[in-house]
Amino acid sequence: MSEVTELPLIGAAAARARAAARVLRTLPTDVKDGALAAMADALVERTDEVLAANALDVEAAAADGTPASVLDRLRLDAGRVSAVAGALRELVALPDPVGDVVRGSRLPNGLELRQVRVPFGVVGIVYEARPNVTVDAAGLCLKSGNAALLRGSASAYGTNAALVAVLTEAAEKAGLPPGSVELLPADRASVGELLGARGLVDVVIPRGGALLIQRVVREATVPVIETGVGNCHVYVDASADAAMAEAVVLNSKTSRVSVCNSAETLLVHRDVPFLPRLLSALADAGVTLHGDDAARAAHDAVVPATDEDWAAEYLSMDMAVRVVDDLPAALDHIERWGSGHSEAIVADSARAVAAFTAGVDAAAVLVNASTRFTDGGEFGFGAEIGISTQKLHARGPLGLPELTSTTYVVTGSGHTR
Amino acid sequence: MSEVTELPLIGAAAARARAAARVLRTLPTDVKDGALAAMADALVERTDEVLAANALDVEAAAADGTPASVLDRLRLDAGRVSAVAGALRELVALPDPVGDVVRGSRLPNGLELRQVRVPFGVVGIVYEARPNVTVDAAGLCLKSGNAALLRGSASAYGTNAALVAVLTEAAEKAGLPPGSVELLPADRASVGELLGARGLVDVVIPRGGALLIQRVVREATVPVIETGVGNCHVYVDASADAAMAEAVVLNSKTSRVSVCNSAETLLVHRDVPFLPRLLSALADAGVTLHGDDAARAAHDAVVPATDEDWAAEYLSMDMAVRVVDDLPAALDHIERWGSGHSEAIVADSARAVAAFTAGVDAAAVLVNASTRFTDGGEFGFGAEIGISTQKLHARGPLGLPELTSTTYVVTGSGHTR
Repeated sequence: MSEVTELPLIGAAAARARAAARVLRTLPTDVKDGALAAMADALVERTDEVLAANALDVEAAAADGTPASVLDRLRLDAGRVSAVAGALRELVALPDPVGDVVRGSRLPNGLELRQVRVPFGVVGIVYEARPNVTVDAAGLCLKSGNAALLRGSASAYGTNAALVAVLTEAAEKAGLPPGSVELLPADRASVGELLGARGLVDVVIPRGGALLIQRVVREATVPVIETGVGNCHVYVDASADAAMAEAVVLNSKTSRVSVCNSAETLLVHRDVPFLPRLLSALADAGVTLHGDDAARAAHDAVVPATDEDWAAEYLSMDMAVRVVDDLPAALDHIERWGSGHSEAIVADSARAVAAFTAGVDAAAVLVNASTRFTDGGEFGFGAEIGISTQKLHARGPLGLPELTSTTYVVTGSGHTR
Repeated sequence: MSEVTELPLIGAAAARARAAARVLRTLPTDVKDGALAAMADALVERTDEVLAANALDVEAAAADGTPASVLDRLRLDAGRVSAVAGALRELVALPDPVGDVVRGSRLPNGLELRQVRVPFGVVGIVYEARPNVTVDAAGLCLKSGNAALLRGSASAYGTNAALVAVLTEAAEKAGLPPGSVELLPADRASVGELLGARGLVDVVIPRGGALLIQRVVREATVPVIETGVGNCHVYVDASADAAMAEAVVLNSKTSRVSVCNSAETLLVHRDVPFLPRLLSALADAGVTLHGDDAARAAHDAVVPATDEDWAAEYLSMDMAVRVVDDLPAALDHIERWGSGHSEAIVADSARAVAAFTAGVDAAAVLVNASTRFTDGGEFGFGAEIGISTQKLHARGPLGLPELTSTTYVVTGSGHTR
């Protein structure tokens, strides 16, 4: 177990969170829901305070030469504050996973066995610029009975501190224990302390780019749920309908390029007759195409692809294109280059669909549907804290049940072995 | 992703296992079951070969001055070989978790959503002397569609190699791909390679003592499922029946002292009138008692306890004893010293049972039942590869479903967002 004294930056906050977690795990749903509603009300009432803190962060970031796209993610306005308050209210409406009986039985010897959902305890979230994550993460953690240790970026520290002050004051008035939500210092070393705080922190979830996630995986001794990197493919089979292929590929690539469930590589069976038309549609939509020789032969707009293109999570209006000899070759490409997020096939052949579904090793396989559907909201799970691309614990959208563990409760009447 | 060239000791085996995993994930249950039955038959037929290799291992270990208890765990005989073959046949009878639909629904937009169990891929198992784990682990991994990378101890290497030769020959004749079961070299460095083989190895499960598990957690960048350390408590409430308390405490402590689900500490409410009798029963059964002042006042046989006793996983006929002021004090003690394995309460008060069940954070909570019941076989799950004491993925006995991940399969008809 980590000792608080070894953790100068986060130890006191983690110890408060640990103590809060022991109370939170026993709270009934209505107390948690009352606190979430009070937090939402407080955010709306105290919007001016939050915006004043945010204006200072934005000003400082602008003075540092921060790019406009990052400034936009950092900037709050009354509409954005109202939207995050609305997200807290939506959590009230979702079922509380804590106490759910996952399975249960009476054993032959009369023992009663129940596997019951329980909170993790203390959940650490490491994230980048967007201050809305502060509110979303706090809400998801509290609804699932966990204390939240939040480590946001330095550029948003003032905003995050204002948000957490509003949230914790409202939460404590509504009966949640102190320490339920703690904002950690934005020093670089605080991430390292969080990742090593075994015994104090039950799980860390990084939300951010590939570099952050790599650092977390390399350094963490605390269990981690990886989220976010999506090098997603759409495979167009020889049996695909031309119009359906065009619709699914365009939507997967262009509907929102900056998110992890957007497609980055198009794989096309060599017998697909409409490849030139498909590439024209992408080029007309403003997509820069990076292709192999066969793709370049099919359309003038295609520039040469290298291994870096197969590996790239572009998050931009770029797409790699490769023509494959058959479906197994598409599976080989995905096995070699995919990040295990979302892989789509467009096909009319049931045999092709079955082979693709069985052969792809990813959080989601989409059949005749856009990769963009891999999303907690789209799946009907309500809010999500990210999309897990690891195989342990939870794979795919992380909703409230995925923020819990389980305990076996075994009830006897003096049973011995 | 790890490159095979960076892993001189395990790279080739891991690459073979990776290739095998792509085939194993698609195999129907009857092929896997046929292979398990063939492996069981081959073990029985080729018992002499296995015993000859084992005799050399035992001889070498004895010459090295290995203690008798370790030699006993290393030694095989025809009965033990027959028993592990029987365990493989029991796996045939268990349901195949792969392909199970965990949840499914039709979304409002017509998309069909199914969450389906899939194998992890490549599972690494690191274990100590007992060669039977070689067979058990291979069988559990194959039944759940995973390739197994086995890293046993150096002292059992010859035995393990003979076992794996028998198993793989039978498995391949029955249609499993080469690489399905690989024995890794027993060099110390092979564990480090295994723990760092991200992208080649999907999960590592250490089976062994606290030192092994600590090393694995510290070094691993591959996801880990922790097993095994059990500092289990029995709390006797003021409302407990004397005879029931005596039966549960004695069974929890003395029925098998060397296993992780045996109890190590007895916590007794200060108002329990039968403490002297309970301590006498333990002392009469041969248990050495290490107690606080109140326990020492209750019985002459109690020697003084230190913090080391509260922390100890004795795995011997020793037990720590502490008298607590109330149930919250028992929960505080368990929170401070417990390993999150199994915690028992003996009580007649429903309020006490509810408070204990809600307040304990462990894989299993046992109410009026021995800690020894935390076991895959006792829970009716069939075989287990260990008992997880972590909160991510699986907590408690690890059976076949716990050796799988899931994939969301989303089927549309050209759906776009």
